[in-house]
Amino acid sequence: MSWNKIIECVPNFSEGRDLKKIDKIVAPFRARAGVKLLDYSNDEDHNRLVVTLVGEPEALRDAVIEAIGVAVKLIDLNHHKGQHPRMGAVDVVPFIPIKNTTMEEAIALSKEVAEKVATLYNLPVFLYEKSASAPHRENLAVVRKGEFEGMAEKIKLPEWAPDFGPAERHPTAGTVAIGARMPLVAYNINLNTPSLEIAHDIAKKIRFIGGGLRYCKAMGVELTDRGITQVSINMTDYTKTALYRAFELVRIEARRYGVSIVGSEIIGLVPMEALIDTASYYLGLENFSMQQVLEARIME
Amino acid sequence: MSWNKIIECVPNFSEGRDLKKIDKIVAPFRARAGVKLLDYSNDEDHNRLVVTLVGEPEALRDAVIEAIGVAVKLIDLNHHKGQHPRMGAVDVVPFIPIKNTTMEEAIALSKEVAEKVATLYNLPVFLYEKSASAPHRENLAVVRKGEFEGMAEKIKLPEWAPDFGPAERHPTAGTVAIGARMPLVAYNINLNTPSLEIAHDIAKKIRFIGGGLRYCKAMGVELTDRGITQVSINMTDYTKTALYRAFELVRIEARRYGVSIVGSEIIGLVPMEALIDTASYYLGLENFSMQQVLEARIME
Repeated sequence: MSWNKIIECVPNFSEGRDLKKIDKIVAPFRARAGVKLLDYSNDEDHNRLVVTLVGEPEALRDAVIEAIGVAVKLIDLNHHKGQHPRMGAVDVVPFIPIKNTTMEEAIALSKEVAEKVATLYNLPVFLYEKSASAPHRENLAVVRKGEFEGMAEKIKLPEWAPDFGPAERHPTAGTVAIGARMPLVAYNINLNTPSLEIAHDIAKKIRFIGGGLRYCKAMGVELTDRGITQVSINMTDYTKTALYRAFELVRIEARRYGVSIVGSEIIGLVPMEALIDTASYYLGLENFSMQQVLEARIME
Repeated sequence: MSWNKIIECVPNFSEGRDLKKIDKIVAPFRARAGVKLLDYSNDEDHNRLVVTLVGEPEALRDAVIEAIGVAVKLIDLNHHKGQHPRMGAVDVVPFIPIKNTTMEEAIALSKEVAEKVATLYNLPVFLYEKSASAPHRENLAVVRKGEFEGMAEKIKLPEWAPDFGPAERHPTAGTVAIGARMPLVAYNINLNTPSLEIAHDIAKKIRFIGGGLRYCKAMGVELTDRGITQVSINMTDYTKTALYRAFELVRIEARRYGVSIVGSEIIGLVPMEALIDTASYYLGLENFSMQQVLEARIME
């Protein structure tokens, strides 16, 4: 039980249908000392594979470099069709500091991987998010705009020269974004109203771009089968914008419409600290430290 | 990171002053595969050493058996004075199921250790708590009543014959209680009143013996330096009596006195599930599973 440092990595590969290829891409993450494959799921409509793994920095780095090599060899973007936007065989590779690691270490690791895969596979790499070399490269959607097809020309523009690798789209594997970011918590809050307009109004008020919480993206969503709506939220840094703050703010804004919260849900994985911090708020815990959590001590 | 089953053990030894002896008692828990020493603290007034460790069942069993042997050799209860009641060199050894283990497995492990130390060290053992062989032996305070001194005669009574070992007090090491129990969470709720009477009244109402919550022991305590009082609680099974339930019940009962909660505190270690369950309650989480907690997945 003694990994000292733990980093998470969630690489996205542009193959959601061919199970044999998927198996080969995931193989470098299996039965490898210092790496643990937590989950992988392929979506046929998106034609995309999302892998979640954790590991010690060095072991994780080596496994990710190897898997990127496999994907570059197996996936040809010229024949790729899917609903999800993509610019490469390996579309995006975020590194996330989890335990005993700083954001700086995750950034350094992302740059190591970026440099290595550029050299090994002749792959152009954009550093993004916290690793970005310029503000206009932070946002993945902006980097990816134009996708594989548009990247042939885009990459030749001076402002879109890759951070590593040739200033030319890889003929089959395209380009990849690699970087470091905070853990993302997908958090939805359900409202007792069927009005999508109300849900969206509330979402606009609580999200960053609407004057709301700094690390909160949100939109209104209809849950037609239940006849209710939802404020669907991405919490992009729960250490600074706490889950309970989004929850309480939605409650406050909903009051204007005579609407109330019927529940909430977390989609996918969540770091324990995000929920323990929430418990600590509601119980008004004094002098509490994560060092008091048995599992945190076991994992030390 | 791959202990499959984890059991916690919190042995209490009757030596709180001699640091050399303490070091020798704790030595079997150090640098041992499958065992992790989380904490140990000696109290000079109590003349007692409390050790917290976790481990895989077999490794933990062997380490605990070894440490009990060391303590039996080093500690002579005939010369032991301290504020804390005690009946043996090793006073009590609880085993607590933490991960991928059932209470039945913890009980089986406690009996294995009990039988082994009785044979190896000629030590009379009482099984207590969930391992008890009769209802009157469940409560440690009842088993220990009379302490080391009184045990010379008590152990000869038919109803106090030991479960393992000779029906005679060990001349220097006395007797020991070994058993399995749920994790205990020490949880205190602070009130904005200086009245110990009010704190104690509320404690009486929320605790099991007063008609309150099943797995809740409580008493009123004065925090003289802050001029307030506290309901000091032992949550003896947070999986059945949740932390938030005690918190909300104290709030409800305090209302009768015009008193409110100013905060609460957790003393020592707490399993993450106790707090995550609390967060889940306040956020009204739907369809949440502990499998969504990143650290739970890492520890799998």
